[in-house]
Amino acid sequence: MCKMSFVDLNADVGESFGAYHYGADYELLPLITSANIACGWHGGDPCTMRRAVALACRHGVRIGAHPGYPDLLGFGRRPMGMSSQEVTDSLLYQIGALDGICRAHGTKVSYIKPHGALYNETARSMELASAVVLAVKEYDPSLYLLCPAGSALAQAADAHGISAVREFFADRGYLDDGSLAPRGTPGAVITDPELVSRRVLRGVRAGILETVSGKELPVQFDSICLHGDTPAAVTLAQHIRSALLEAHVELRAFSEDGCDGF
Amino acid sequence: MCKMSFVDLNADVGESFGAYHYGADYELLPLITSANIACGWHGGDPCTMRRAVALACRHGVRIGAHPGYPDLLGFGRRPMGMSSQEVTDSLLYQIGALDGICRAHGTKVSYIKPHGALYNETARSMELASAVVLAVKEYDPSLYLLCPAGSALAQAADAHGISAVREFFADRGYLDDGSLAPRGTPGAVITDPELVSRRVLRGVRAGILETVSGKELPVQFDSICLHGDTPAAVTLAQHIRSALLEAHVELRAFSEDGCDGF
Amino acid sequence: MCKMSFVDLNADVGESFGAYHYGADYELLPLITSANIACGWHGGDPCTMRRAVALACRHGVRIGAHPGYPDLLGFGRRPMGMSSQEVTDSLLYQIGALDGICRAHGTKVSYIKPHGALYNETARSMELASAVVLAVKEYDPSLYLLCPAGSALAQAADAHGISAVREFFADRGYLDDGSLAPRGTPGAVITDPELVSRRVLRGVRAGILETVSGKELPVQFDSICLHGDTPAAVTLAQHIRSALLEAHVELRAFSEDGCDGF
Amino acid sequence: MCKMSFVDLNADVGESFGAYHYGADYELLPLITSANIACGWHGGDPCTMRRAVALACRHGVRIGAHPGYPDLLGFGRRPMGMSSQEVTDSLLYQIGALDGICRAHGTKVSYIKPHGALYNETARSMELASAVVLAVKEYDPSLYLLCPAGSALAQAADAHGISAVREFFADRGYLDDGSLAPRGTPGAVITDPELVSRRVLRGVRAGILETVSGKELPVQFDSICLHGDTPAAVTLAQHIRSALLEAHVELRAFSEDGCDGF
Repeated sequence: MCKMSFVDLNADVGESFGAYHYGADYELLPLITSANIACGWHGGDPCTMRRAVALACRHGVRIGAHPGYPDLLGFGRRPMGMSSQEVTDSLLYQIGALDGICRAHGTKVSYIKPHGALYNETARSMELASAVVLAVKEYDPSLYLLCPAGSALAQAADAHGISAVREFFADRGYLDDGSLAPRGTPGAVITDPELVSRRVLRGVRAGILETVSGKELPVQFDSICLHGDTPAAVTLAQHIRSALLEAHVELRAFSEDGCDGF
Repeated sequence: MCKMSFVDLNADVGESFGAYHYGADYELLPLITSANIACGWHGGDPCTMRRAVALACRHGVRIGAHPGYPDLLGFGRRPMGMSSQEVTDSLLYQIGALDGICRAHGTKVSYIKPHGALYNETARSMELASAVVLAVKEYDPSLYLLCPAGSALAQAADAHGISAVREFFADRGYLDDGSLAPRGTPGAVITDPELVSRRVLRGVRAGILETVSGKELPVQFDSICLHGDTPAAVTLAQHIRSALLEAHVELRAFSEDGCDGF
Repeated sequence: MCKMSFVDLNADVGESFGAYHYGADYELLPLITSANIACGWHGGDPCTMRRAVALACRHGVRIGAHPGYPDLLGFGRRPMGMSSQEVTDSLLYQIGALDGICRAHGTKVSYIKPHGALYNETARSMELASAVVLAVKEYDPSLYLLCPAGSALAQAADAHGISAVREFFADRGYLDDGSLAPRGTPGAVITDPELVSRRVLRGVRAGILETVSGKELPVQFDSICLHGDTPAAVTLAQHIRSALLEAHVELRAFSEDGCDGF
Repeated sequence: MCKMSFVDLNADVGESFGAYHYGADYELLPLITSANIACGWHGGDPCTMRRAVALACRHGVRIGAHPGYPDLLGFGRRPMGMSSQEVTDSLLYQIGALDGICRAHGTKVSYIKPHGALYNETARSMELASAVVLAVKEYDPSLYLLCPAGSALAQAADAHGISAVREFFADRGYLDDGSLAPRGTPGAVITDPELVSRRVLRGVRAGILETVSGKELPVQFDSICLHGDTPAAVTLAQHIRSALLEAHVELRAFSEDGCDGF
C-alpha cells in the first residue's frame, strides 16, 4: 500500500456569535490547513466570520463555507425537515454571504462542508445530498465538497461532476460498517492525543482503520477532521502535526489555489 | 432646462418571510426597472429571494441588494446603534448572500440600496455612510449605490469613487430643505395616482419639485422610488409608466449591463 | 344518539409578526368561542399577542396558548427533533409569556393547543405528548388541552389527569382510520361553506363523520377547529354559526371560567 | 451615619444560549442573594432559564426577571428605538415567560431588573422608564424593581407605587455627579478584589462613595451589583462576602418571601 505524501487537516471555526465565544479560533487556525467557517445560521456572525477569514489568510489556510440549518438555538444539530429547494437556496445564501466577506480580504471560498444535522442527513439521504450538490453546481462547480467517504453526499458529488474530498475523523471511533460510532457509546470519542496520532499515522501510512470492535478496515481519505469545539482540540492538533512531520507526511490543503497572496 | 430622455423606476421587493407574504412582487416586478431585493435580515429569506431574482430576470429588471439591520421584528426600521465595522461586515454578508442566489440564475447584483433605518441614518451620518460605502468598495467598486440626492451617503460615495444614483420619492412629500416630510405630517404621503404622476412628470421635464409648503425646488435624480408595500403601489406604478410613456420619457434601468441573457 | 346541545368553535389567531400581517383576527374573533393565540415562536409577537388578547376579551372569547417550535421561517410546521426536556421547558416559557400579557387585561390562559409540527408529532408520539402534558401539569393542572380525539396527546392527558378537549376539523377530510387526509390528496381540504356546514351539523347531531372514501365513522368532539389562515375562514365561520344556530346548538367555549368581566 | 445591618448581592445569570455558554452560573449562584435571570431575548433559553431557576432555588437565592431587547446578536446592549407600547408588552412577555418556568419549581419572580441598553435608557428616559414601570404594575404591582439610585426608573417606580430597590455597582467607578464612569475611561472598571471590598464596606458602613476624581459622595443602596460575565466575578463575590461577614453585615435578599419551600 502506497503511503500518502501529504494530507489536509480541517476544523470548524468562526462559530462564535456576538458576545458568545465558541471554540479556539486564534489557537487552532495556525495549526490547520483548511478552515470550515460558519455562515451565520447555526453559528457565526459577519464580524466573527471576518475575523476568521482574516486569520485564515494570515496563516495561509484554505477557506471553506460551513453552512447549516437556520437553528441557532440548536446549533444546527437538529434535523429540520427542509425541502430540497429550501436546502439549495439556503446554501447559495450562506456560501455567497461568506464569499462576500472573503472579498474584503481578496480571497474566496474554496470548498463547502455542510454542518451538523445537514452533514449527517446528507450522508444518508440522496435527495438532500443532491440538493447540496445542486447548490454547489449553481454557485461554482469548481468548488470542492468535503464529505464522508462512501456517503450519499460523495455519490451525489460524483454524479454531478463535483470534486468530493473524503475526510477521516481523527478523534472519533468507527463501527465495522465504516460509519461513526454514535456519541455516548464506548470508544465513540477518543481524547488521548497519543492514540489519536497513532490512528492518523496508521491511516496515512497503511490506509488502515481499527474499528471500536478491533476489526481492521481499509480507509482512504484526503483530509483529517478535528473537532474544534473540544477543549483538547488545540493539543490534538499539535500532536497530529508532530506525528505527521516525523513521518514525513506534509500537511497541506487539498487544493492549492487561493489565499496565497497573504 | 433640459428634459430627461429616460429614467429608472425602483421598488422594494422580496420582503416576504416564510409563510408571511409582503408586498406584491408578482404584479410590481413587470412594471419597474430596478428591484431592491431584501437580503434576509429585515425581511426576505433564501426562497423568497430566489423567486424575486427569477422574476427580475424574466422581466429584464436590474437587481439591487437591499440590506438592512438584523431586526426582523422591527422590519429594519429601528436604529440599532451598530458600529461602523458591524455595518460594513453586515453589508458584505447580505450583498454576498443575494449574489450567491443570483448565481443560480446566471445574473448578479448591480447596485446597493440600504433599507429602512439604515437608509435614514446613512443619509445623515457620514460615519455610517462611510461604513456602507466601504462595504461596496470592498465587495465590488463597480456597483452603484442608490441614495437620496445631497445625502451623506451620496457624499461618501463620491469621496470614495462609488457611483451614486440619486432617487426621487414619487409618493412622498418634501420639506423646503429638500428632506422628506416625516410620515404622519400633512402631505407626507401622496396616494392620488394623478398627483403622483404630475409630480414625476414635472421633475423629469422641468427638474422642479413642489414642496408641502408650495415652494418650488430644483431637483435632479436618476431613479424614481415607489413604495412596494402599499396596496396602491401597483396602480401608482401603472400611472407613472403611462405618464412617462406619453411624455416620451423612456423607463430603463440606470445601468445597462446585467441580466440580459434571460 | 344524543344530539349535542352546545359546542365550541376554535381558531388560530395572533400569528402576525411585526410588519407581517397574517390571518384575519379582527373579523374572526367575534365569530369564535376559543382563540388559540400564538406565543412568539412560530408566529406572534408581544404587541400582536396583546391585541389578540384584548379582542378576545372584548368578544368574550376563551384564550388558549398556541405554542410552537422556535422556527419562525418555517412557521413551526417543520419537526425539530427537540428533546422532551426542551419541549417541556419551551412550553412553560410560551404559556407563561402569553399569561404575562393576559395579566395586563385581567384575564388568563384557559387551555393549551400545540401548533403545527408539534401538534402533529404529539398526536403520534407518546414521548413528546408526555413532554407537553408535563408542561401543562407543572404550569397549572387545571388547564385544558386541545387535541385530536384518540391521539397520543389525548391519552397522555388522560394518564396525567389533564382534561383533554377533543376537536373536529370542520374544513378537512378524514381517512377511514379517523386520521386527517394529508394535504394535497383529494378531499383533504374542504372549501365549500355549505358542505363544511353540513359536515359540522351531522357530527353535532348524529355523531357521524363521512370520510373521503364515503365511509361513515362515529365521531365525538367538544370543539370545532377552523383554520384561520385561509381567506375563506371568515365565511366558513359565519356559515357554521348560522347552521348551528338554526339547529339550536349553542356555540360556547368548552369551559366557562375566565374572561367574563370583559 | 447608621451602619447597614444587611445588604443584598445581585448578579446576572442564565445568559447562556443553546450550545453557547456564558458566565459562571454554577459558581456564582451559591455566592449571591438575588439572581437576575435572562428571559430569552438578549440571552437565555428555556432550558438555561430552568437550570438557573433550579440552582437559585437550591441555594435559596431570590429570582428576578432580567428582560432585554430582542437583539441576541448585540446581547441587548444596543438601543433599539422601541416604542413605549413595545417595551411594556415585551416586558410582560419576558416576565411571564420566566414566571412560567418558575412554576415548574414552585417558585416565582420576585423582582425585575432591565438589561443592558434597556437599563441604561430607562435610567435617563422617563418615557421608557414609565413603560417598564407600567409593565410591572400590570403584571404584579408587588414586584420590586432594581434600579440605579436617582434614576428616571427609580422616579417612575416611586410615582406609580412600585418598590424601587437601589443598587450600588461594586466593580465600577463613579463620576462626581453620581453616574457610572463610561467603560473605557480611567477607573471605570475596578478589578482589584481588595479595592472592590473596601469600596463596598465603606458604602455599607459610612454611606460614602469615592468617585474616580477622589471626591466623596453620600450613597444609599439596598443591593450590591456584581457583573457575572467577567472571569473575576466569582473571586470578587467571595471577597465581598468575606468582607461583609467580617464587618457583621448580613448578606440577604432585599425581600424575604419566595423560594423558601426548597
